[in-house]
Amino acid sequence: MKLGRMNHLGYAVPDLSAAIAHYRDVMGAEVVTEPFDMEEQGVKVCFVNTPGHDGTEGTQVELLAPLSDASPVANFIAKNPLGGQHHVCFEVPDIEAARAEFEGMGKRILGPTRIGAHGTPIFFVHPKDMLGMLTEIMETPKEGAHWSN
Amino acid sequence: MKLGRMNHLGYAVPDLSAAIAHYRDVMGAEVVTEPFDMEEQGVKVCFVNTPGHDGTEGTQVELLAPLSDASPVANFIAKNPLGGQHHVCFEVPDIEAARAEFEGMGKRILGPTRIGAHGTPIFFVHPKDMLGMLTEIMETPKEGAHWSN
Repeated sequence: MKLGRMNHLGYAVPDLSAAIAHYRDVMGAEVVTEPFDMEEQGVKVCFVNTPGHDGTEGTQVELLAPLSDASPVANFIAKNPLGGQHHVCFEVPDIEAARAEFEGMGKRILGPTRIGAHGTPIFFVHPKDMLGMLTEIMETPKEGAHWSN
Repeated sequence: MKLGRMNHLGYAVPDLSAAIAHYRDVMGAEVVTEPFDMEEQGVKVCFVNTPGHDGTEGTQVELLAPLSDASPVANFIAKNPLGGQHHVCFEVPDIEAARAEFEGMGKRILGPTRIGAHGTPIFFVHPKDMLGMLTEIMETPKEGAHWSN
């Protein structure tokens, strides 16, 4: 496996509107994508776009807020009431090949490969096998699909 | 202020060599910078380079390990023994202008502006004013100085 682009930093927040206002008003974000629900994961999600080098797209900040008290992110917020880093996501060219590699290394993968917030297949690797960092592995979106949902 | 490039994600680890091995062997990192001590901050530091779009430089992972038990990062590791996200760093074109803006917004800045690990001026903003995220603001390195220490 070859280290891919850091697609996004997943950040859990108690209040999505307040977090969007923070990124717009304090940090000066110009593009925040429209929030949408990921019912299965129990979260409302949006992305803050950041610039990369030379006019390219940079690593996004994914803001995640719990949809209900039953959301796994609700537990995270209970422990981190202001918000906190939830996961980091790196791209790979081929999700099945990456999954086989992580499995071959004995890394614990959390659940099946599924379609993530960018519409491409993803899986999560257990933080205990990843320096404490919940890690999302995401198949690189096809050319032209960057930064879409 | 306009949101700048996410320069790096600061990640605290208990053992720098083990973390470098993880990034090389598990994640497939090709370039990890030579570790060096930042005595004043009580940390040993190196950067894992990640690719950006179109051959550009992506957001780095900064690995931080405590130099001694007296290091502020040692407390962080005591609470997060495997490691964990420590801060996130965004670039600005002018550090003094950015500092004045954060101060004007009533954000708590941690100490004086100083020279950071990339050799450019930086300051940190208190996580309690930043959605729980310890935030480093860093003046963009001059052209040609990317990814150097």
